[in-house]
Amino acid sequence: MEKTMLGLVKEKREPGAVLKEVPVPVIGADEVLVRVKASSICGTDVHIYNWDAWAEKTVVTPNVFGHEFAGVVEAVGSQVVNVKIGDHISAEGHIVCGYCKPCRTGNSHVCLNTRSFGITAPGCFATYATVKASNVIHNRPDMPFEIACLQDPLGNAVQTVLSGDIVGKSVAVIGSGLIGLMSIAVAKACGAGQVIAADINPYRLEMAHKMGADVLINNSVEKLSTAIFEHTGGEGAEVVLEMSGNPEAMQEGFEGAAKAARVSLLGIPVEDVSLDMGHIIFKGLRVEGITGRRMYETWYQMKGLLDRGALNLNPLVTHTFTLDRYEEAFELMRSGRCGKIIFLHESNMMNEKNRNYENYTYLTV
Amino acid sequence: MEKTMLGLVKEKREPGAVLKEVPVPVIGADEVLVRVKASSICGTDVHIYNWDAWAEKTVVTPNVFGHEFAGVVEAVGSQVVNVKIGDHISAEGHIVCGYCKPCRTGNSHVCLNTRSFGITAPGCFATYATVKASNVIHNRPDMPFEIACLQDPLGNAVQTVLSGDIVGKSVAVIGSGLIGLMSIAVAKACGAGQVIAADINPYRLEMAHKMGADVLINNSVEKLSTAIFEHTGGEGAEVVLEMSGNPEAMQEGFEGAAKAARVSLLGIPVEDVSLDMGHIIFKGLRVEGITGRRMYETWYQMKGLLDRGALNLNPLVTHTFTLDRYEEAFELMRSGRCGKIIFLHESNMMNEKNRNYENYTYLTV
Amino acid sequence: MEKTMLGLVKEKREPGAVLKEVPVPVIGADEVLVRVKASSICGTDVHIYNWDAWAEKTVVTPNVFGHEFAGVVEAVGSQVVNVKIGDHISAEGHIVCGYCKPCRTGNSHVCLNTRSFGITAPGCFATYATVKASNVIHNRPDMPFEIACLQDPLGNAVQTVLSGDIVGKSVAVIGSGLIGLMSIAVAKACGAGQVIAADINPYRLEMAHKMGADVLINNSVEKLSTAIFEHTGGEGAEVVLEMSGNPEAMQEGFEGAAKAARVSLLGIPVEDVSLDMGHIIFKGLRVEGITGRRMYETWYQMKGLLDRGALNLNPLVTHTFTLDRYEEAFELMRSGRCGKIIFLHESNMMNEKNRNYENYTYLTV
Amino acid sequence: MEKTMLGLVKEKREPGAVLKEVPVPVIGADEVLVRVKASSICGTDVHIYNWDAWAEKTVVTPNVFGHEFAGVVEAVGSQVVNVKIGDHISAEGHIVCGYCKPCRTGNSHVCLNTRSFGITAPGCFATYATVKASNVIHNRPDMPFEIACLQDPLGNAVQTVLSGDIVGKSVAVIGSGLIGLMSIAVAKACGAGQVIAADINPYRLEMAHKMGADVLINNSVEKLSTAIFEHTGGEGAEVVLEMSGNPEAMQEGFEGAAKAARVSLLGIPVEDVSLDMGHIIFKGLRVEGITGRRMYETWYQMKGLLDRGALNLNPLVTHTFTLDRYEEAFELMRSGRCGKIIFLHESNMMNEKNRNYENYTYLTV
Repeated sequence: MEKTMLGLVKEKREPGAVLKEVPVPVIGADEVLVRVKASSICGTDVHIYNWDAWAEKTVVTPNVFGHEFAGVVEAVGSQVVNVKIGDHISAEGHIVCGYCKPCRTGNSHVCLNTRSFGITAPGCFATYATVKASNVIHNRPDMPFEIACLQDPLGNAVQTVLSGDIVGKSVAVIGSGLIGLMSIAVAKACGAGQVIAADINPYRLEMAHKMGADVLINNSVEKLSTAIFEHTGGEGAEVVLEMSGNPEAMQEGFEGAAKAARVSLLGIPVEDVSLDMGHIIFKGLRVEGITGRRMYETWYQMKGLLDRGALNLNPLVTHTFTLDRYEEAFELMRSGRCGKIIFLHESNMMNEKNRNYENYTYLTV
Repeated sequence: MEKTMLGLVKEKREPGAVLKEVPVPVIGADEVLVRVKASSICGTDVHIYNWDAWAEKTVVTPNVFGHEFAGVVEAVGSQVVNVKIGDHISAEGHIVCGYCKPCRTGNSHVCLNTRSFGITAPGCFATYATVKASNVIHNRPDMPFEIACLQDPLGNAVQTVLSGDIVGKSVAVIGSGLIGLMSIAVAKACGAGQVIAADINPYRLEMAHKMGADVLINNSVEKLSTAIFEHTGGEGAEVVLEMSGNPEAMQEGFEGAAKAARVSLLGIPVEDVSLDMGHIIFKGLRVEGITGRRMYETWYQMKGLLDRGALNLNPLVTHTFTLDRYEEAFELMRSGRCGKIIFLHESNMMNEKNRNYENYTYLTV
Repeated sequence: MEKTMLGLVKEKREPGAVLKEVPVPVIGADEVLVRVKASSICGTDVHIYNWDAWAEKTVVTPNVFGHEFAGVVEAVGSQVVNVKIGDHISAEGHIVCGYCKPCRTGNSHVCLNTRSFGITAPGCFATYATVKASNVIHNRPDMPFEIACLQDPLGNAVQTVLSGDIVGKSVAVIGSGLIGLMSIAVAKACGAGQVIAADINPYRLEMAHKMGADVLINNSVEKLSTAIFEHTGGEGAEVVLEMSGNPEAMQEGFEGAAKAARVSLLGIPVEDVSLDMGHIIFKGLRVEGITGRRMYETWYQMKGLLDRGALNLNPLVTHTFTLDRYEEAFELMRSGRCGKIIFLHESNMMNEKNRNYENYTYLTV
Repeated sequence: MEKTMLGLVKEKREPGAVLKEVPVPVIGADEVLVRVKASSICGTDVHIYNWDAWAEKTVVTPNVFGHEFAGVVEAVGSQVVNVKIGDHISAEGHIVCGYCKPCRTGNSHVCLNTRSFGITAPGCFATYATVKASNVIHNRPDMPFEIACLQDPLGNAVQTVLSGDIVGKSVAVIGSGLIGLMSIAVAKACGAGQVIAADINPYRLEMAHKMGADVLINNSVEKLSTAIFEHTGGEGAEVVLEMSGNPEAMQEGFEGAAKAARVSLLGIPVEDVSLDMGHIIFKGLRVEGITGRRMYETWYQMKGLLDRGALNLNPLVTHTFTLDRYEEAFELMRSGRCGKIIFLHESNMMNEKNRNYENYTYLTV
């Protein structure tokens, strides 16, 4: 086996990244080596690329970054029993301790000692990646790598939608970024009633429509809570999924919530938010803070939905690149004129479009 | 307004029924009078028609029977504020006291003082019916009466499916009678993973296939638990919905349940069932006894699903009759060569097929 | 029966109240007439007495106010079946419609059409009061009226404590007003682990100690979140019960919450609160807005606790008055130098101290 | 450190056991070595000692048996980070795989690949024992070893009681064996209403009384369900905890359950049980199969209760022995004339009675 590989490395604590030859990782006894077939760019990766305040505070360098991927196992450590060579896999990105109280009580997603694959530990924008056996998620071999690599953010959406009852309920998805868009499809697949999508960007609202939203609200034009009440017969939304992180939109979400509604918060505001707590108290709301994915309940829910073809993620993927064209890809991400961008790690994949999963199609750039 | 109407009356405590002129009911201050547009025949109605031991023990005579219906409000009592003349409605059939402990703690479906519409109180196989305002369910005016009248049994299915988590889970529906068939559609609409349907009747299994079942098991041919394990990779079903009431099938359901599974029991065995409790204890199962519908959470879940077109009930309805041909209808029910049979209460409905709800079609006899 | 009675009336939309002769209420068919034996003064009553902005916006005049009481039934309406003359009762103060969606789905406490006993409908600071039969709570005949009348605020405490898991968990009660104090006793009775009480008033902290708090924090002296972390081994509180309504204390509560904690909000801030939402999102918190009492689950939980002697509320009751000395009573409430103040509605009760419930004692003024 | 130690070994697949010199275990990288201070005899140990059909089918030989213990850590493996030498510990006895679906979804207690400490893996009736670091439970250093060693069965009780709501509810504990007795104390500590204890043995009922039961029923004398209805005002028990494994008692438990009640099953019948499923279905019961302890939620609940002194287990412990007198101890267990029997692993402990935990006292034999 080769000793070196290409990896997209965040080398210096400044904007940019470099694709360079790095050693193929050596796996520990409880780890597996995966040949990455496809990976996708998360908003977090753009933060790392751009090197903002969050990145400065959080990210380890030098480090191969990227955390959304699918691939095939090439080697397994001596203690590994649940994974074998040739398995198609993705992985949960939170590397958790297993012994803290949250870990021991079903709350690993808020482990006290988390390391993050591709952020504070080596990631997947490379030929090979190392994953803890405990974190491996098995994919059906016939699932296209380009879809399988989306499960990390899809898991955020699944966890947000399913953090309370959804069947038959009116749902307001505030913020139609990638996870917001995924949430629309998940909500519909899980029996939601009317789904209302909000964003200030018409391009995003158009995507929301494709994902199955019943009502589209441009909250730069309409007052969001007023629009929600209008579309729900004055009742308000029974489920509010806050995906924007925008303080004003968040306030509107609490205002537009029905009595006894659930408000699940995923979008992260960069500043404090001033809230009328009366919405929470007098309406008897339940608020759920969402981080990561339930380990691993969320992954099994997602697998059940994907394996049955209940989710159509095609409209989300707008571009694919080979890894060497990473600068174009990040530039496109920064422009906002795209949905999900996928890296195909083997150049021949650009020509062989995998179409066996729900008529999957995508643009190759 | 007319003083008398036609009603299908269980007059004597013996088999049969008679369609005869009876007084139009006089409503109380908290009741509404509904002109019945469509009704459907429940297995319970066949028990009443046949007059078996259960009927002898339970049913009041003389009484207009029938409890599944949809219609239009003709008059409202003086204290009624939530219903108005012209509303399209159906109704919950459990008439509950409101003051017993189950009623006061969200468990009205097991009220200590229940009366049952069409069983121990006057029902809907008539031109008009009387309903307590508290029991009224509003239907969308554009929902065909032939679909709207199915909500009572559909509610049993919704309550059974949603008595625990369903998203992404493998589901075994044991017994493909009408409610079993409805459960298949509900489970799929609510994000279930693989749905396995079992019955001993090939005709029923064919209907299960039409309702969306992924796997069909004829448990007169195969051992049910073995088949479930085969189709779930040795895991067993994560959700078992017992709809058969057959003791042997029930035992197989417990045996075929996965570890930590949920088993929801709706089908009523006519005799005691001998169970290996080790299945429940060592596998850590949760068992839910299902009766009626959650009042009224189930109805809202159902409304959300129906109003979004998430449920296709068309394959269930195989025949429609006018009420005067009730003998043919009950004969057909007894033969088993049918799905759901609907009475159209106004003869002109036989010619005007209402098709505005999800391409609804049905056979008119 | 007499035609008039004494009632404490909020007559004018200005500070104060007047004790005057008013007609004995005439009950409707679904109501009961209760002879009030004991009532207690809520903070809300002080707002009404003082006539602040909230009162101006909310309260109906003229009206007999007061909503916390216990008494004996003197008459019942013609339709009433669950209450009989001579029953010892209290009542839920939320008079709800029964037909709105919250009412029909187990959320009557946030009914869309609520009227409030003693606030927007006649109350209990009088010889007699009228209560809807549906709202009646039966008390054990041997429960002292002075304890039974406390169930309305106690229900707020029970609902707050039990809005999530409590057994073995560390609990921070922020704000040791009357309901905060009750929450301490309820949490201990329901298996809480360490209970930390916070207030800025040493008198209140002393009462918190008597109610069973394990740790007392004066948050005018110590930074609350820091103190919580110190006393929980750096973990934070697994359950935070916000009873203060103070914006700063509320922020400290979110900061002092453990990962995956529950934060239940009862105290009502008079202004918007600026929050670092990262506490909710990154720690994966669940937040519950609490209003009223679950109708009627909370009452049954409370009854179970009270009937078993699991709650000692004695330290809370510091003074009793006859109703004619209402001015002194309200003056004392305004001074803050008291716990709960009780009105004994029959003057001879001042001498006959009822001591048969858990060694009940109180100060008679 | 010594190379050999004394261990109580199940050597041959026949009745009896032998105390003999065995090697001190060598710990793996993820294990800890604990010096056992106190252990207790479980009913399972008696099955192993007696060598019945279950033992023949299940137990590995030769093996040091025993699984309930408390001790002090003497050495830790190279990968262990959560335990250090000198820690006071007990341990969860289910040694689970961590990668099966139950393990990954919060259901480790029904792991597909469980090994059991002291049954299919070496146990604690010895000077030293080996425990996986992941299974270690830290005890407060001031908790007497004689109490700390009881946490394994206490955890069964805690898990059974808390497998649904308990506050204010009427509870029937059927079977007053050790875990049944513990359940009584746990239920009271967690806010249960009336607790009814049933057994056919007056000695056990006397112990039930000491543990806090409000009502005692000898179900060899009275029909259990009838007695339950009598003591609950005709309502039935809202929570039934089945601890007997007796088929007839189990049937009575289902019959005596209130509408919408919860029935938690821990006791294991040795044969199939014939049940009237109508109790489950028409009363809308929820049935929970209980095995082991939630890993590790149950342990944290238990720790919170024990650390606050909310549970008095003293009445349970009737005898202590040194390990060399194991034959007398097992003989006493077989006689049924005892509560819990504890082995003190260091002979001087027989004289130094540890009394700093809630006035702990016990009989030394």
